[in-house]
Amino acid sequence: MGYTLTVSRARRATRTLWLLLLVSLSICICVCNASSQEDSAMENIVTEKKVEESHRQDSVDLLIFIMLLTLTILTIWLFKHRRFRFLHETGLAMIYGVLVGVVLRYAIHVPRDISAATLNCHVNASPATLLVNISGRFYEYTLNGEISANVLDDVQDNEMLRKVTFDPEVFFNILLPPIIFHAGYSLKRRHFFLNMGSILAYAFMGTLVSCFVIGLLMYGFVTLMKHVGQLGEDFFFTDCLFFGAILSATDPVTVLAIFNELQVDVDLYALLFGESVLNDAVAVVLSSSIVAYQPQGDNSHTFEVMAVLKSLGVFLGVFSGSFALGVATGTPLLDSLTVTRHVTKFTKLRDFQLLETALFFLMSWSTFLLAEACGFTGVVAVLFCGITQAHYTYNNLSPESQIRTKQLFELLNFLAENFIFSYMGLTLFTFQNHVFNPMFIIGAFVSFRCRFNCQRTVAVFIGRACNIYPLSFLLNLGRRNKIRSNFQHMMMFAGLRGAMTFALSIRDTATYARRMMFSTTLLVVFFTVWVCGGGTTQMLSCQRIRVGVDADQDNLSVNEGSERRSTKQESAWLFRIWYTFDHNYLKPILTHSGPPLTAVMPTCCAPLARCLTSPQAYENECQLQDDDSDLILTDGDISLTYGDVTISTDATGAYTTSGGPAGLPSGTANASFSEELDRELTCGDQELVMRGTRLVLPMDDSEPPFTDHHRPRI
Amino acid sequence: MGYTLTVSRARRATRTLWLLLLVSLSICICVCNASSQEDSAMENIVTEKKVEESHRQDSVDLLIFIMLLTLTILTIWLFKHRRFRFLHETGLAMIYGVLVGVVLRYAIHVPRDISAATLNCHVNASPATLLVNISGRFYEYTLNGEISANVLDDVQDNEMLRKVTFDPEVFFNILLPPIIFHAGYSLKRRHFFLNMGSILAYAFMGTLVSCFVIGLLMYGFVTLMKHVGQLGEDFFFTDCLFFGAILSATDPVTVLAIFNELQVDVDLYALLFGESVLNDAVAVVLSSSIVAYQPQGDNSHTFEVMAVLKSLGVFLGVFSGSFALGVATGTPLLDSLTVTRHVTKFTKLRDFQLLETALFFLMSWSTFLLAEACGFTGVVAVLFCGITQAHYTYNNLSPESQIRTKQLFELLNFLAENFIFSYMGLTLFTFQNHVFNPMFIIGAFVSFRCRFNCQRTVAVFIGRACNIYPLSFLLNLGRRNKIRSNFQHMMMFAGLRGAMTFALSIRDTATYARRMMFSTTLLVVFFTVWVCGGGTTQMLSCQRIRVGVDADQDNLSVNEGSERRSTKQESAWLFRIWYTFDHNYLKPILTHSGPPLTAVMPTCCAPLARCLTSPQAYENECQLQDDDSDLILTDGDISLTYGDVTISTDATGAYTTSGGPAGLPSGTANASFSEELDRELTCGDQELVMRGTRLVLPMDDSEPPFTDHHRPRI
Repeated sequence: MGYTLTVSRARRATRTLWLLLLVSLSICICVCNASSQEDSAMENIVTEKKVEESHRQDSVDLLIFIMLLTLTILTIWLFKHRRFRFLHETGLAMIYGVLVGVVLRYAIHVPRDISAATLNCHVNASPATLLVNISGRFYEYTLNGEISANVLDDVQDNEMLRKVTFDPEVFFNILLPPIIFHAGYSLKRRHFFLNMGSILAYAFMGTLVSCFVIGLLMYGFVTLMKHVGQLGEDFFFTDCLFFGAILSATDPVTVLAIFNELQVDVDLYALLFGESVLNDAVAVVLSSSIVAYQPQGDNSHTFEVMAVLKSLGVFLGVFSGSFALGVATGTPLLDSLTVTRHVTKFTKLRDFQLLETALFFLMSWSTFLLAEACGFTGVVAVLFCGITQAHYTYNNLSPESQIRTKQLFELLNFLAENFIFSYMGLTLFTFQNHVFNPMFIIGAFVSFRCRFNCQRTVAVFIGRACNIYPLSFLLNLGRRNKIRSNFQHMMMFAGLRGAMTFALSIRDTATYARRMMFSTTLLVVFFTVWVCGGGTTQMLSCQRIRVGVDADQDNLSVNEGSERRSTKQESAWLFRIWYTFDHNYLKPILTHSGPPLTAVMPTCCAPLARCLTSPQAYENECQLQDDDSDLILTDGDISLTYGDVTISTDATGAYTTSGGPAGLPSGTANASFSEELDRELTCGDQELVMRGTRLVLPMDDSEPPFTDHHRPRI
Repeated sequence: MGYTLTVSRARRATRTLWLLLLVSLSICICVCNASSQEDSAMENIVTEKKVEESHRQDSVDLLIFIMLLTLTILTIWLFKHRRFRFLHETGLAMIYGVLVGVVLRYAIHVPRDISAATLNCHVNASPATLLVNISGRFYEYTLNGEISANVLDDVQDNEMLRKVTFDPEVFFNILLPPIIFHAGYSLKRRHFFLNMGSILAYAFMGTLVSCFVIGLLMYGFVTLMKHVGQLGEDFFFTDCLFFGAILSATDPVTVLAIFNELQVDVDLYALLFGESVLNDAVAVVLSSSIVAYQPQGDNSHTFEVMAVLKSLGVFLGVFSGSFALGVATGTPLLDSLTVTRHVTKFTKLRDFQLLETALFFLMSWSTFLLAEACGFTGVVAVLFCGITQAHYTYNNLSPESQIRTKQLFELLNFLAENFIFSYMGLTLFTFQNHVFNPMFIIGAFVSFRCRFNCQRTVAVFIGRACNIYPLSFLLNLGRRNKIRSNFQHMMMFAGLRGAMTFALSIRDTATYARRMMFSTTLLVVFFTVWVCGGGTTQMLSCQRIRVGVDADQDNLSVNEGSERRSTKQESAWLFRIWYTFDHNYLKPILTHSGPPLTAVMPTCCAPLARCLTSPQAYENECQLQDDDSDLILTDGDISLTYGDVTISTDATGAYTTSGGPAGLPSGTANASFSEELDRELTCGDQELVMRGTRLVLPMDDSEPPFTDHHRPRI
């Protein structure tokens, strides 16, 4: 009774609030309208006033977006309450964006602003800054970019709609970095590293395959269009490839939210999330290297080996450069935080959390800027910076700062994501130069043919199909824990396109081809987010994918033991080498966990090792010997042997210590398993064992920093 | 031993880090330099490349600032460790800014960029958007503003320095709002409301007096300068007044940090903080209304009554409009959060914290934008929005969101503040159009005459002296708890100028007069932050101001009882009416605390009251009667009587309930005091008592949301 009453009150109040918000939104729009009308009337008032007016206009524009976001958040609240799972917040943001876009476009008629003047100028180049002498007074103008002649009328036409349109670079420089960083920082590292081989294959090979398949298909369609006479302008193969690269960046945020909510199989989650995160990075670099393809000859669109090689070089150079930069910029931060940990130990910690958080934030941002300044891709650098920081730096932060940074980036991610999606909705109607070419759109959606599968008829994209199925087949040859066919179908279905695709396509809308791509991309994003995103629950039940899996319980259960072991072993060859190096060298140098370096490095390097080891590492060693569970809690499932003491732990935190030079692990549950790995390690990494260090369960079981609190979890 | 070792390690590591940072900073600068050199060489490469180049340049510029901030944070860390109190982080940020400014200015010689072209144009007006037809291709340019003819050479001169210079509106639209909002949100409301009368007097009267005194003094100096021939250009009385308004905004962030650290008397803290917060708001509106002074006649700088009245109208209109807007935009947020509390009660709370925080953030920002869009002052609206939200909304948030919002705005404030101060340092050398007029500067500093006081010789500003001393004298006539003379001297000394002064002066540097003001303001800020800020500790001990006062203990101690009572009574006439209204009507409507409206509203309004009261208020009522201490914990020191039950609480949380129609409070410690107030209330607000509601200790004792964690507190 009380419940019903309160809920109905809440609903009523919410409805009132929406009305209020809509009213205020329309007031905004009216103000906006009025100020535009004023604009045209005050031709003769001084420039400063006009600049001020333009600032006010900017405020109104931003206000519209903030109202949109507020509306979205309020609706999400209601949806969460009603457990409505067909529409994710991003889809909702898009719908609201479309509605406001329609209002801005059709309900408001702004009189033609005749203040935009065209000058004929006798300068050869286009300077970045222009000083215009208007009847004796000088005015400064900054270059915005080139405008093709056929849209000149549009440019002068609707000032207001143009104002609502942001500089595309805003997406790359302000909105994408927090999203990407958050993705890297919140990566569930354990399962990510376990499936690393497959994820890397999907991300690199998959994106390349998908890009070329889409590119080739589109080229076919474009050729057809030219024959039919539907396409007047140029559309080269590089454009098609560029389109392929754009459409290869997947962003299954909706699907992942539902996975999180329903607790879908962790491996599937890790594959999908890991793939989508790396996908974005690859797609960005790929698209920029396609743009860099410029043959020397007269016709700049012929095939030329040198130019292809150059593009390939750009791809590899930019990607590895960004990767190295992202990983490296972690290091000063790590160091500085290590230092500060020493300092903070002796003063009050609580005063320094703010500084710690601020430093963390600034260093992450400077990674992005540094990469951009060096000509690398900031987005890629920020991704790897996030992963590195989650792996190393996170352990060095004070517990309060861990929560703070987590929450800060969560908030930034949430706001940026919803902003991009509502802007996407808005832009469908406010963008002035849409080119909706039906045949091109059909071409992009071409692959919506029915495909008869083992179980069902599923609508798929050919591009993604050519990515997922053959790669999965190849990967399954190497994997012991096969990627099952229903997982493959699900991954295919979850190939949503989102923020990155949008940002890439809006970055350059100067030519006809690019505009056509942009409009088509927008439709693809809408379709995938609404249809594929909305159908995730149905698809999951169709494909009989297990839900309600508790990741931790899954690992502890005895039944799953054999499967788990095989999972670990299939990734062992790539993973174990990395983990050993990481655990024995990197973690001790960069964090306080792991064994002291003096124990793992050869004796010749002893002075260096002593210098690099933090005093806390020795303390940790003492703690281990003193039966303190500090390290065990952070490092989880590991069993180390150094000196002549073996400490073996399992995930429950129970551990046993056994003395003896041979260092045989003696954990009861892990005994047979560890022996097996033991043998392998003895064969493979003999040197390490010789030096007295060996690890039994090479898992990093520490809690991933994020659990995506804002995703629905019922 | 271990301590010394670790500290010396830490120090060494910090030194290494600094070196590293400095090196990276210089690399940035080199990159920046190199890219500028490239710039001039690639005249013929297409425009898009140039735009891209300019984006990269922007990255480098931002990177320089982020490095500066990082450097500052690292140094603060060391300072906190060393308990070094002469230099606050803001002062430090300025020093680093100056150093980098010197490097940028003198160590780097960028070849003259000849790409800036001057066009002679036959258009009458200056359009906001310009399309330039350069040999058949159209380029879009946006208006930056007017440039006076005598700096045309400078504009073309050093492209790089100009790039480092931000659009002044960035300060108003991006950096100031979080600072101001934080100030409002973190206001120690209890002491602020206790001293509200004095604070309002200092803020409004004080700022006006200070503005006019400085304006008049400067006018004298300017007249003198004209006679001497030192000043060629125009400098009107309105300019002097504008300068006065700029210099009236105080920002004693350094002093307050030290106060916080040393736990100086809370009343002095409240006076100084409250004054500085409101000061800023008044100064912004004052300066804009001075700019709005435009007489009708030919000579636009004569005195005209109508124009003065219009300016006054602008002042009152803008201030009250912004105030109303700031307070009002709290309300939808409050409502929505009230609603969501109902919703969240029945679903998992933890999923919604992010939404709650995001909503809180967005609504605060939209207040700012809405005010700007309506032509009011966003900064003022945001201040009152912050105060309102701290007073009402904060109570409605979930505990986790309270911490989240607190920490978020703390971080934003910290970053914005340090950014502004380091930019200030940078701009001393990178700003191209400095006008350092020695006499004008002497004029601004004029008041550095030695003033023989009761105790000491203190250097003071006349402007601030004319503000503080006479006002304090007048206020002391009305106050029972006098503002002692050492408090007055301290307030005088603490008249630092900071972010707001800088933002106001950099907003418009188009004319010679404004540039001279800007340069002078910069020097004033430097002087006050370094000298006055650094000397705070000395001044405190000079003036024998009590330090180490625990605010809570202070109130509980019996010795201070009489003083405390008088404090409460002196502010009673203004405060009690407000508090009664707030407690009985606003709080019940807007939050969950306070008595249900049905109990306090007259019977004729019963349906309305029932409609407005949230179900939780009834629950609270029940809780109170059911001996639950929920309300007591949030509302602290209050004693309410409604219906026929009196609940009286003291700060320790103990409370007693006594039935009876007369409702005599029966708290033991508060008995005599409450009786006294009782009598007063019976005389003054008879109606309220008639309706059975009466409050005994009109204090809001709930914990202020912030305690400035990042301020040093040893």
